[in-house]
Amino acid sequence: MRAEILAFGTEILMGETQDTNSAHIAARLPALGVELHTVTVMADEVDEMVATLHRGMARSDVIICTGGLGPTKDDITREAIAEAFGETIEIDPELVADLKRMFQGRGQEMPESNIKQATRIPSVTILPNPRGSAPGWWAEKNGTIIIAMPGVPSEMVVMWEEQAAPRLKERSQGTVILSRTFKTIGLGEALVGEQVGSLFGQENPYLGIYARQDGIHLRIISKAPTDQEARALMEPMAAEIVSTLGPAIWGVDDETPEERVGTLLKQKGLTMAAMESCTGGLLASVVTDVPGSSAYFKGSLVTYATEVKSIAGVDADLIKKHGVVSKEVSEAMAEAVRDGLNADVGIGITGVAGPGPQDDIPAGTVYVGVATKGITQSTEMRFPPDRPLVKRRAVVQALLLVYRMLLETPR
Amino acid sequence: MRAEILAFGTEILMGETQDTNSAHIAARLPALGVELHTVTVMADEVDEMVATLHRGMARSDVIICTGGLGPTKDDITREAIAEAFGETIEIDPELVADLKRMFQGRGQEMPESNIKQATRIPSVTILPNPRGSAPGWWAEKNGTIIIAMPGVPSEMVVMWEEQAAPRLKERSQGTVILSRTFKTIGLGEALVGEQVGSLFGQENPYLGIYARQDGIHLRIISKAPTDQEARALMEPMAAEIVSTLGPAIWGVDDETPEERVGTLLKQKGLTMAAMESCTGGLLASVVTDVPGSSAYFKGSLVTYATEVKSIAGVDADLIKKHGVVSKEVSEAMAEAVRDGLNADVGIGITGVAGPGPQDDIPAGTVYVGVATKGITQSTEMRFPPDRPLVKRRAVVQALLLVYRMLLETPR
Repeated sequence: MRAEILAFGTEILMGETQDTNSAHIAARLPALGVELHTVTVMADEVDEMVATLHRGMARSDVIICTGGLGPTKDDITREAIAEAFGETIEIDPELVADLKRMFQGRGQEMPESNIKQATRIPSVTILPNPRGSAPGWWAEKNGTIIIAMPGVPSEMVVMWEEQAAPRLKERSQGTVILSRTFKTIGLGEALVGEQVGSLFGQENPYLGIYARQDGIHLRIISKAPTDQEARALMEPMAAEIVSTLGPAIWGVDDETPEERVGTLLKQKGLTMAAMESCTGGLLASVVTDVPGSSAYFKGSLVTYATEVKSIAGVDADLIKKHGVVSKEVSEAMAEAVRDGLNADVGIGITGVAGPGPQDDIPAGTVYVGVATKGITQSTEMRFPPDRPLVKRRAVVQALLLVYRMLLETPR
Repeated sequence: MRAEILAFGTEILMGETQDTNSAHIAARLPALGVELHTVTVMADEVDEMVATLHRGMARSDVIICTGGLGPTKDDITREAIAEAFGETIEIDPELVADLKRMFQGRGQEMPESNIKQATRIPSVTILPNPRGSAPGWWAEKNGTIIIAMPGVPSEMVVMWEEQAAPRLKERSQGTVILSRTFKTIGLGEALVGEQVGSLFGQENPYLGIYARQDGIHLRIISKAPTDQEARALMEPMAAEIVSTLGPAIWGVDDETPEERVGTLLKQKGLTMAAMESCTGGLLASVVTDVPGSSAYFKGSLVTYATEVKSIAGVDADLIKKHGVVSKEVSEAMAEAVRDGLNADVGIGITGVAGPGPQDDIPAGTVYVGVATKGITQSTEMRFPPDRPLVKRRAVVQALLLVYRMLLETPR
């Protein structure tokens, strides 16, 4: 099954919005057995849209469109698809009722212009939108499927994952491409490469190695006519990687450090708290992105101002003696928050996020302290002096440090 | 001058690499007076590439290509351009000498396969590559310019900024494209659209409307031979938007809520602190993403566990009486953190991030309290029950509430 993506949106062409939708869809098509041959980003101009849809109908089995389903005059994806299929748009009373209910739920009257979003052509099956007012279209005629989804990424992703992708999987009969990624920590790229060196160089399954923010990744890609065969091809190589690298592997595929730490804390019945300076609350935010984190995360004290560190229980003399950005203060922060918030594990992060240095300490310098029951450890990190990057990487490394200490913590 | 971008690369279509090059180029074209109408990402297949180049030659003044300039058999961008122009590729002895020098500088012999990168067609002017072995091509024939640059972003960006963009600016006939975005809050898309409805439908200046996390955006795009004329075209429409929507507009262009709040706090000499529950530190992280935020941001207490709210100074009886997710508790949190961290403005956020309900309160319910000197306000919000989305939107809305209260705060 050959597919193309059409992303409609002047704001993408003006460089004001990144087209994250196409990358999201592209990453998921291989596992559906769908081959993507082209992504086109274009303006909302109906003639060009119709011409591009016609070209797509000639060369693709499925055309996946995003954007242009809003209620305004600019939103003309429905009109373009209707014209490409030679059909007439009609108001669907059921869709009107759905929309009115949605607005009522928000305590609002449905504005007149939203009626555009309650329309369809005869070839369309509606893809419900649980996140917004624009339903998606699954239009099918003469062997071509056109899928139209909203451009707002949060709406698109849910509609794609829950509606469009499962339908597409049922219909595709192509080669299934599977991948599995093993994420390691504590070993360099060369060392990981050496340890599994005998696995490189095959075509199928194929093994790749990549240096990432959260350690060295190994990725297996296997291709076969069915899901089952692709899986069978992959398994022996996956088993060998697991047995060779063992505890250096902290996660698989989409697993994140915050999920792994959360799982371990729950297994061991432990709780965690943090005191953050240069990461400014990002660690807490990342940890609480995990549903159910309230079971093990007590909270974080974002002690951005130095005086607030003292309020939060860090000895002011210690700060004066070693400087606020120091190994000693990171450890004291970890211990103070562990005790102050009655947690089992405390994390303390202090550093210079940048862009400039602070008290002669270069931007990108970060100290992370972790205090469990009885043991306090700390580590110094140096990142490139880019503020958002320093925050992100410090959080990932802090969580992986906690992960390794938890592996060694009894209970 | 009308342009299109062609990004060649199977790895982008497989979802393994994000096409950051196109977004980088797209963001810079308007200021060069170049209008981008299409971005196409496609595989390295020579027939499709030639067909796409031919289509581009018919509809664009300039075609900007990235990728496919490496030394391997897969790298066929040069071949495709030669075929599209009907010219023959020849080895250029000067380029061979350059390449050999580059490899010598690395202490290596030039591999035989790299000779591909020392070739050109008669219509080509070479764009040097200071970062790698693939020189770029500036090919020009019968009124069409084809620019080919490497796909590696670090190489592409330098070649684009230092070579291709300046040349293109010289050649573009001075049609300047300006844009201005007005960001509004408190009104729905349909309502904003209705209020400025008479401004839609013109070609130049063009008005677009977009639903975003931080409210509804209106964007004007104007085109004219000079900057001054483009500005003159835009101003009447901009003035009408400002006078119609007035205080609903909180920001222009790239301005963020955290920057607008930071600017106001600095102007008024005030400091801010937060107590966050369901946003889990995201507000603090966003506020501290702004360089210089330590001047006005004291910190945030991420009181994820209910008991920690009491430790942080919220009356336990009040929590028992109204429930932890309530208007009253959000206000008490705001006041407690304002006083506890010696700040002028306190923010309290409590809610249910989801995915499930909590104590019968549906996911997506958030209360934000803001306490300035003497005045405490709060607001209830309901978002779709998606955890990361609830966090992000609650933070944006909390900051916009602070913004509106600060506007009314004397000093």
